[in-house]
Amino acid sequence: MIPMVPIKIVSSGIALPENKITSHQLDIKLNQPTGYVEKLSGIEYRFHANHHDSQAQLAATALHHALEIKQLSADSIDVLISASAIPVQALPCTAAHILAQSKLKQGIACFDINASCISFITALHVAAGLLATNQHQRIAVVSADLASRGIDWRDHKSALIFGDGAACVIVEKGDGNSGIITYRHETYTKGIELCEVRAGGTQRNPRVGITEDDFLFRMQGQKLFRMISLLIDDFLQQILTDSKLQLNQVGTVIPHQASYLSLTHIKQHLNLKTEQLIDIYRFRGNQVAASIPSALHEAIISGRFYGQKNVMLLGTAAGMALCAMVLIP
Amino acid sequence: MIPMVPIKIVSSGIALPENKITSHQLDIKLNQPTGYVEKLSGIEYRFHANHHDSQAQLAATALHHALEIKQLSADSIDVLISASAIPVQALPCTAAHILAQSKLKQGIACFDINASCISFITALHVAAGLLATNQHQRIAVVSADLASRGIDWRDHKSALIFGDGAACVIVEKGDGNSGIITYRHETYTKGIELCEVRAGGTQRNPRVGITEDDFLFRMQGQKLFRMISLLIDDFLQQILTDSKLQLNQVGTVIPHQASYLSLTHIKQHLNLKTEQLIDIYRFRGNQVAASIPSALHEAIISGRFYGQKNVMLLGTAAGMALCAMVLIP
Repeated sequence: MIPMVPIKIVSSGIALPENKITSHQLDIKLNQPTGYVEKLSGIEYRFHANHHDSQAQLAATALHHALEIKQLSADSIDVLISASAIPVQALPCTAAHILAQSKLKQGIACFDINASCISFITALHVAAGLLATNQHQRIAVVSADLASRGIDWRDHKSALIFGDGAACVIVEKGDGNSGIITYRHETYTKGIELCEVRAGGTQRNPRVGITEDDFLFRMQGQKLFRMISLLIDDFLQQILTDSKLQLNQVGTVIPHQASYLSLTHIKQHLNLKTEQLIDIYRFRGNQVAASIPSALHEAIISGRFYGQKNVMLLGTAAGMALCAMVLIP
Repeated sequence: MIPMVPIKIVSSGIALPENKITSHQLDIKLNQPTGYVEKLSGIEYRFHANHHDSQAQLAATALHHALEIKQLSADSIDVLISASAIPVQALPCTAAHILAQSKLKQGIACFDINASCISFITALHVAAGLLATNQHQRIAVVSADLASRGIDWRDHKSALIFGDGAACVIVEKGDGNSGIITYRHETYTKGIELCEVRAGGTQRNPRVGITEDDFLFRMQGQKLFRMISLLIDDFLQQILTDSKLQLNQVGTVIPHQASYLSLTHIKQHLNLKTEQLIDIYRFRGNQVAASIPSALHEAIISGRFYGQKNVMLLGTAAGMALCAMVLIP
């Protein structure tokens, strides 16, 4: 048997903004015939924050949800990791902003992990590593993204797929019966410009030049899809080989909810039964880094996580990156 | 003996922009008498990037420097962690941008760790955790910050202390004779607004409102200093207690190069001999997250790292956070 890195997900929670946006509402907003947005996006409704809503507040709500579900004490969390794609602001880190909005005790370690849409898988791997050092007992990993702040409404193909949201998992080292079998994370920078928000750092700012468009999310979907298609077979084969598993030994697959097309392809490609694939896309859209932990929460509450022999988290991300984790719940 | 998390720093490197800016040049730029800037900042010169210079390129130069010094193969790095305070852009992560500018092989894991100015200490702790999982062999941690992009020249107290730069360390698990004894990281969000760059994320953007000032670094130095003063004694006592060490057993202290005042206080407070405190501030300024690894590199090349029984990394950061690590080199 392959060595496992012990980690136990002891609770999970989610949060959504109040505003439910149906695809029909967007048909009207974009001056399109009824059914246009749902057909193009595969989404019935998603949630968008108001302009005054705070990403850190939404993250804290998901965190509190996770604490409440299992009646965990807020004081028992000794590390808070923010695993979002877009930060609250450039400085200080988003985790500090979440701490400020939360019931967690002051004086704990707070930091951000950023690997775009797969930040959560990476953060879970990092959390397992931190727990292996025995210097921490209980870690909260929170992903929150407000994609609606960066939607370019002129570009329907990318604009219509996004929803806002947050999700949190709380992890401990556990008793050694649960943990991570393999983590695989590959970055191919040939695709670095296929999915980006150019503002936000040193590359574009008033001193060196910036436009309003630099704040918007830009995606070259077809090129990205083609690039992923060329890489995904070998990637999936490798994670199974590393895990010493056959595909039929993976009980549940929890993918990034990237798009209707991406979920359909994963299902066909991995030959999954409907209940094996966690798919919340139709009622959430692509929630960026919050998608994977939101889907993980769905897997837990729908009885498709605990009790499974092997669960796979899987995602693609801006960068361009592929990431997967096989874990025993 | 207290258990240690194995990690070995096998190489380090730095990079600086070409532009050396003397304090006298800034006297002229700011229309001040000769000696004004040096007296106020305690800096003789620092380096500032040109507007066309790239943060990722500077990071890659530091990374290549670290590879060259020890003749390590670029292909041997299997994880690249960016540990900078300010990113290249909001999406994708800075590590992917560094990979794109580097000689490292494609297809490796890339992600960012952000804990403001103490990102490097946190990333070193995370790297040790990842190495403990035995899923990675050799990790590059790179910090690069171009503070000059966000300097508010109207605020002399904060404007004059910053310099740009990058630094990299390459780490392995090692043979178990070197490693991290303790890591302590405390966040107090009462000070979250004392040090910030408000632009860069969901809080300020054209959709919800943004001004040119939001791109600038703002610091309330006196309030920050007072807050740190109230916390630092207990913090230092705790890290020594956790490490089961007396202060005189720490051979070298590698602090964040926050300011002339902060370095003077650390030296007095910890009763350090000049050679025990790594101080590169006079010729670099505060290089934000790149300060600590740049000072670590200085400790290595000046013979004050390897051979020491215990070395302490120490820093304060926006958030507001305190962080320290005791390691055996």
